[in-house]
Amino acid sequence: MWKLYHFALCPFSRKTRLALAEKGVPFDLERVYPWDGDDTFYQLNPAGRVPVLHDPARGAPLIDSQAICEYLEETEDRNPLILGNAAQRAEIRRLVALFDQNFFADVTHPLLHEKLKKRLVLRLTPDSGVLRSAMKLAHDHLEYIDWLVGNRRWLAGAQLSLADFAAAAQISVADYLGGIDWSGHEESHGWYRVMKSRPSFRPLLQEKMEGIPPPRDYADVNS
Amino acid sequence: MWKLYHFALCPFSRKTRLALAEKGVPFDLERVYPWDGDDTFYQLNPAGRVPVLHDPARGAPLIDSQAICEYLEETEDRNPLILGNAAQRAEIRRLVALFDQNFFADVTHPLLHEKLKKRLVLRLTPDSGVLRSAMKLAHDHLEYIDWLVGNRRWLAGAQLSLADFAAAAQISVADYLGGIDWSGHEESHGWYRVMKSRPSFRPLLQEKMEGIPPPRDYADVNS
Repeated sequence: MWKLYHFALCPFSRKTRLALAEKGVPFDLERVYPWDGDDTFYQLNPAGRVPVLHDPARGAPLIDSQAICEYLEETEDRNPLILGNAAQRAEIRRLVALFDQNFFADVTHPLLHEKLKKRLVLRLTPDSGVLRSAMKLAHDHLEYIDWLVGNRRWLAGAQLSLADFAAAAQISVADYLGGIDWSGHEESHGWYRVMKSRPSFRPLLQEKMEGIPPPRDYADVNS
Repeated sequence: MWKLYHFALCPFSRKTRLALAEKGVPFDLERVYPWDGDDTFYQLNPAGRVPVLHDPARGAPLIDSQAICEYLEETEDRNPLILGNAAQRAEIRRLVALFDQNFFADVTHPLLHEKLKKRLVLRLTPDSGVLRSAMKLAHDHLEYIDWLVGNRRWLAGAQLSLADFAAAAQISVADYLGGIDWSGHEESHGWYRVMKSRPSFRPLLQEKMEGIPPPRDYADVNS
């Protein structure tokens, strides 16, 4: 059986969980705290990063969320998430990279650093200037999602794809940390409500990070 | 004909150029200066980042080095760079992500910021502490390459793959900026000499960035 080493508020762990669940691949979860420096985990991945997907019966651990998602795409025929012809697949991968890299650097990473790492590990006060800038950049990204959803059915085109799950994974972490303000973003908000109501999404929304409660509406699929 | 919008010292542009050349795909080059904010380029990629690969006859621009390399892999049969079974392909993609993300964040990005952006755009003096830290982290990465090359023929296994080109692209930019010290890294150095001597690599090594001359040995395939 696959075991997914993950962290509850890691957007890349969330993206991988969503891909596994959408494809109907059974897996166990094992929580890793990135700041623990756990030896067993470092033996699996010397880079010390989640997610790692491992089944000793199948070979070496799989590392990096995109490498794992591509592997699942190549080995599981059910519910393709990187689908279409080569150009459509390139568009899906462009958007996955945009959310994995730009949204993460602009929004999710500063929020995680200020609101989680500073509180739980560094015991420092969050920098309100950094938080304001992350929320401003979140608006710019939501505006782009408004445009995508207004011009296509799903983010990368006519079909639900890994681009939607990569984006929703980042947004769900930013939303948990109070960094998402939907006002003025009706299209994005409608799309995210649909993502939240998928069965693959429910377990993520139920998971709590000790010491950091989510906002009231975070797990409500109707708001 | 494909046109590759690139920047001479962008490691992701270099990785894409290497993949195109290794696969024997003809392309024209167009230099973009990321700090120019050129309108025509922003119309191609609203994120304003190189590389972008575009052939109007074939459709929309391709954006993001990994999305482009996966597209080339799917459309060009010659000289596969993401090769082998699903597990071997996952290992190639793990290493590509390690160099594209970790090596870039640890080494290439700080060197580009301190030695190129500060000199040419911000008109500031480089921070020697940041440079020292980048060079220390470069040593750690070279140590891992020593281990990979000592235990496998190429970085991801028995065959040359995109992992080697992703790593060599990052190292070539760091080397141009004086950030690579090979002492104590004979295995990595031997591997990099082989990479430098490939015909695909030559045009990269000949290219100069105005105002920033490379070290003497940079383009010498024997040193």
